[in-house]
Amino acid sequence: MSVAALLSEIDDIGRDPLRGGYSRPVYSSAEIELREWFTAQALDRGLSVESDGNGIISAWWETPATKGRRDDAVLTGSHLDSVPGGGAFDGPLGVASALVAVDHLRARGLTPARPVGIAVFPEEEGSRFGVACLGSRLATGAISPDRALGLRDAEGDTYAEVLARQGLDPRGVGAHTPWLGGLHAFVELHVEQGRGLVDLDRPVAIGSRILAHGRWRIVVDGQGNHAGTTLMTDRADPMVVAARAVHGIRNLARATPSARATVGRLQAIPGGTNVIASRVSFWLDVRHPDDTAALSLIGTITDLVGRIATDEGCTVTISEESYSAATDFDGTLRESLATALPGAPVLETGAGHDAGVLAGAVPTAMLFVRNPTGVSHSPEEYADDADAEAGAVALADVLASLAGAG
Amino acid sequence: MSVAALLSEIDDIGRDPLRGGYSRPVYSSAEIELREWFTAQALDRGLSVESDGNGIISAWWETPATKGRRDDAVLTGSHLDSVPGGGAFDGPLGVASALVAVDHLRARGLTPARPVGIAVFPEEEGSRFGVACLGSRLATGAISPDRALGLRDAEGDTYAEVLARQGLDPRGVGAHTPWLGGLHAFVELHVEQGRGLVDLDRPVAIGSRILAHGRWRIVVDGQGNHAGTTLMTDRADPMVVAARAVHGIRNLARATPSARATVGRLQAIPGGTNVIASRVSFWLDVRHPDDTAALSLIGTITDLVGRIATDEGCTVTISEESYSAATDFDGTLRESLATALPGAPVLETGAGHDAGVLAGAVPTAMLFVRNPTGVSHSPEEYADDADAEAGAVALADVLASLAGAG
Repeated sequence: MSVAALLSEIDDIGRDPLRGGYSRPVYSSAEIELREWFTAQALDRGLSVESDGNGIISAWWETPATKGRRDDAVLTGSHLDSVPGGGAFDGPLGVASALVAVDHLRARGLTPARPVGIAVFPEEEGSRFGVACLGSRLATGAISPDRALGLRDAEGDTYAEVLARQGLDPRGVGAHTPWLGGLHAFVELHVEQGRGLVDLDRPVAIGSRILAHGRWRIVVDGQGNHAGTTLMTDRADPMVVAARAVHGIRNLARATPSARATVGRLQAIPGGTNVIASRVSFWLDVRHPDDTAALSLIGTITDLVGRIATDEGCTVTISEESYSAATDFDGTLRESLATALPGAPVLETGAGHDAGVLAGAVPTAMLFVRNPTGVSHSPEEYADDADAEAGAVALADVLASLAGAG
Repeated sequence: MSVAALLSEIDDIGRDPLRGGYSRPVYSSAEIELREWFTAQALDRGLSVESDGNGIISAWWETPATKGRRDDAVLTGSHLDSVPGGGAFDGPLGVASALVAVDHLRARGLTPARPVGIAVFPEEEGSRFGVACLGSRLATGAISPDRALGLRDAEGDTYAEVLARQGLDPRGVGAHTPWLGGLHAFVELHVEQGRGLVDLDRPVAIGSRILAHGRWRIVVDGQGNHAGTTLMTDRADPMVVAARAVHGIRNLARATPSARATVGRLQAIPGGTNVIASRVSFWLDVRHPDDTAALSLIGTITDLVGRIATDEGCTVTISEESYSAATDFDGTLRESLATALPGAPVLETGAGHDAGVLAGAVPTAMLFVRNPTGVSHSPEEYADDADAEAGAVALADVLASLAGAG
C-alpha cells in the first residue's frame, strides 16, 4: 500500500468547513478516529499496539529474538493532531510513512535485529492546550505532570479532565513511558514546512537542527465601554495596545536577522462590535536559530509591549507557555542517516517537533519530505505521491540500517 | 413594585461567567426567558400582549374608550437583548421602567385617553446578526426582509432559520407591524451611556439627538503559513494589516473632533498560535454628530486600510453592515417632554437606539437615566435604585401628558 493510498483513507476525517483543511485537536472526535485508524492499520500488520499513561500509542514489530529488548529499540512515528485549519501532511505523513516503511522492510525480506516501533504522540501542535509536544514533553520529563494536568483548553476544561473523559488516568502521565529511556534511536519523518527541498529540487532531506522556539501569552487589560458614547480621549482600549504590539513585534523580528515572530491568535473580550474591549489576549510565537538571540528578542518585545500598554492606560501580563532551546540532532546518528541516504541534503527547520523534545533524551534524527508549495499549517501544505513514497523508502532504508535488519 | 425590584427578578438570567455581566443575544435561551418574564409581568398588569411578525412583543393598556385606536397610541419600551458581557440596565431598564410607569399612572388613578403600549424590540444590539435595531428596522422598512433574513450569526445560521426555530414564519417579517404607522408618540427610556448626567448631578435627561453611526466589516486575506518556517520577508500576514489598521483608525478618529471609531471584535482564521493567519476579519464602529463628517471619516479609513493591505501583500474588502444618519428627535415632542419634566437637562447620545430608527417613522423622544460609572456595554454599567425610580416617575409623567391621562 502506498503512502498516498494510506493517507486517502483519512482524507475525510476532521475537515474544517470554516477554515478549510483539517482541524484535528488532540482528543477531538477526529483525532480519536485517527488513532483508531492507526491502531487498526498496525494490528493489520501484526504489530503489537500499546497506549501508555501519556496517551502515546506505540506499535511494535518484534521477533522472538528482539522481544523484551526495547531498551535497544529503533522508534519512528509522528503525530495525528493538527493546527486549526491545517494541512493533510503535518503529522500524518510521518505516521503513514512509518507503516509503509515496515511494509517495505518486509517486502525486502528483512528482519530487524532490534525492535522497531511506531509512535503517535498526542498534542504535538499544542492547538488545544497551548503547549506544543505535550505528550513527548511529559514522557521525557520536560514538563511536570502537575503543570500539564492543569492546562486548560478554550472551553475551560483541564488536560486532566479531558484525559479522564478518554478513560485515561491523569495520575498516569509523567516520565515513565517504559520504552523511552533506552531507545537506540528515534527518527521522525515530516513534511517540510518551507522551500528548502523545492529550491534544491530533491525529494528528501536529513534534519540538522531545530531552531529555538517558544510561545508567550500576552494579556492586556483596559476599560470595557460603549463604542459610541466613550470619547476617544477617555479610552483605555486593549485592542489598540494589541494592535500596536503586533505591528511593533513584526518590525522587531524583521530587524533581527533569522528571527521569526508571529501573532496568529487573538481574542477580544467581550468581543462585541459596539463595545470597547475590556481585555485582549494574544499569543506570540518566536523562533531563532540561536538561543541567546531568541531570548534577547523576547526581552525587547516584553519591554515594547509594556511601554505601549502604559502609554494607552492599560496593563499587560506576559507569560511563557513553552520554550525550547535550539536543538542539534545527534551527530553520530546523522552520519548513519547520511550513509543510508547517500547524497541527501541536510536542512535545519524552524518548526518544533516531538523529535526536538526527544533529542534531549535519546539519539534522534529527522527526515523531511519535499512540500512543493513551501506552505504548512494551511490547507495548501502538500507532498506529491512520488515524494511521499520516496520518503517512505528513505525511512525504510534508515530503519534497516539502524535496526540492523538482515 | 420598584424598578429595582423588577430588575432583581431577572438578575440571574443570562449571566456570562467568562466575560462577566450578561450575554443575552436575541433568541438565545436567556433572551427568550426574558421575553417570557416580560409577558408574564404584562399579563399580571392586565395588559393585552401580542407578538408581531418581526418578533416585537407589545403589551397594551387599553380601555373601552381607546380600544381600536392604536393609530393614536403612545408607545414606550426598549429591548431585552444585550451585547456580549453587557450590563444589567441597557435595555431592561427601559422595559422595567415602562411597567412601573403604568403602575404609577394607575396608582394616581389616571386613565389614558389614548392607548398606551410597551414594546420589546429584538436584536437592538446587533450582537448576534450584526445589524443593530434589526426589529425596528424591519418594522419601519429601514432594512429589506430579504437582507435581514439572510443575515448569519457566528454559528452560520441565518436569521430566517433562527426565526423558524422560534416558531416565527420568516415571511412575516417586514414593514407591516400593525400599530406602528400611526403612533401618536414613541418614548424610549434608557440608561445613559456616558457621564452627562453625572457631570450635571441630575437623575434624568431628555434626549436631543443620536449621532450618525454605522458598522463596517473589514476582511483581510493573506497567506496562511507556518509561524516557524516562513521568513519574515516571505509573509503576507493579515494580522499585521489588521494591527496597523486598528492603530491607524484610532489615530484618525482622535484627529477628527467629536468622532468615535472602535474595533472591539476581531477574528483570525485559522487562529492557531503557531500559524500565520490566512484571513483576519474585524468590525469597525464609527460615530459622529455630523453625517458628512462621519462619511468622510469612513472614506479616509477605507483608503488607509487599502494602502496598508497593499503594502503587506494582502487584499481587503470593506462592507457596510449598517449606517444610520444623525437623528434629531421630534421638536414638538421634545417641547412636550420639557413641559412634563420642568428643568430636565437635554443631552445628545453617541449610542444607537430603536428610538433612532422609529424617529424616521413616528414622533419619537428619549429619556436618559443617570449612570454613575459612565460606563456601558460592560458589567460596570449601573443605575442606582433612586435614579431608576426617578426615571420611571418621569416616564409616567410623560406618558400621562402624551396620552392625555385624566
